[in-house]
Amino acid sequence: MWRAEMRVTLKPGVLDPQGRAVRQKLANLGWTGVSDVRVGKFLELLLEAPDRAAAVALVEEMGRRLLANPVLEDFSFDLEER
Amino acid sequence: MWRAEMRVTLKPGVLDPQGRAVRQKLANLGWTGVSDVRVGKFLELLLEAPDRAAAVALVEEMGRRLLANPVLEDFSFDLEER
Repeated sequence: MWRAEMRVTLKPGVLDPQGRAVRQKLANLGWTGVSDVRVGKFLELLLEAPDRAAAVALVEEMGRRLLANPVLEDFSFDLEER
Repeated sequence: MWRAEMRVTLKPGVLDPQGRAVRQKLANLGWTGVSDVRVGKFLELLLEAPDRAAAVALVEEMGRRLLANPVLEDFSFDLEER
């Protein structure tokens, strides 16, 4: 059993209205030293795979085909055996 | 300047309909070996702080007061100096 932690982030240059709203709200609350906020997704997956290479290939393909939008988003992940 | 990466995740036991939908969709696409998916948020913050201890305290407080819902969510973060 493998546990993957995947970060899905907007590509550099893609506008992030949610991040801007969070930054504005932080500033309103007095945290004026925050110059940028970007909001992405954090996915935790449990999966079966015979070895690390197979698990990497699976998660890579799931990220490319479903979990991230390849036009707007990048993704990266870590894997640990359970 | 400090860069924080924060992971905001549903507490164990809190139902995650979005994660369940992703798992179902993965299964429909043939990835039947995925037994669990949890979906959280991934935040990237750039902030000013005089040192690491101050940056940790700031991010900790922002997480507690705004970025995570303390009833439903946990958060953790890493910091690097820029």
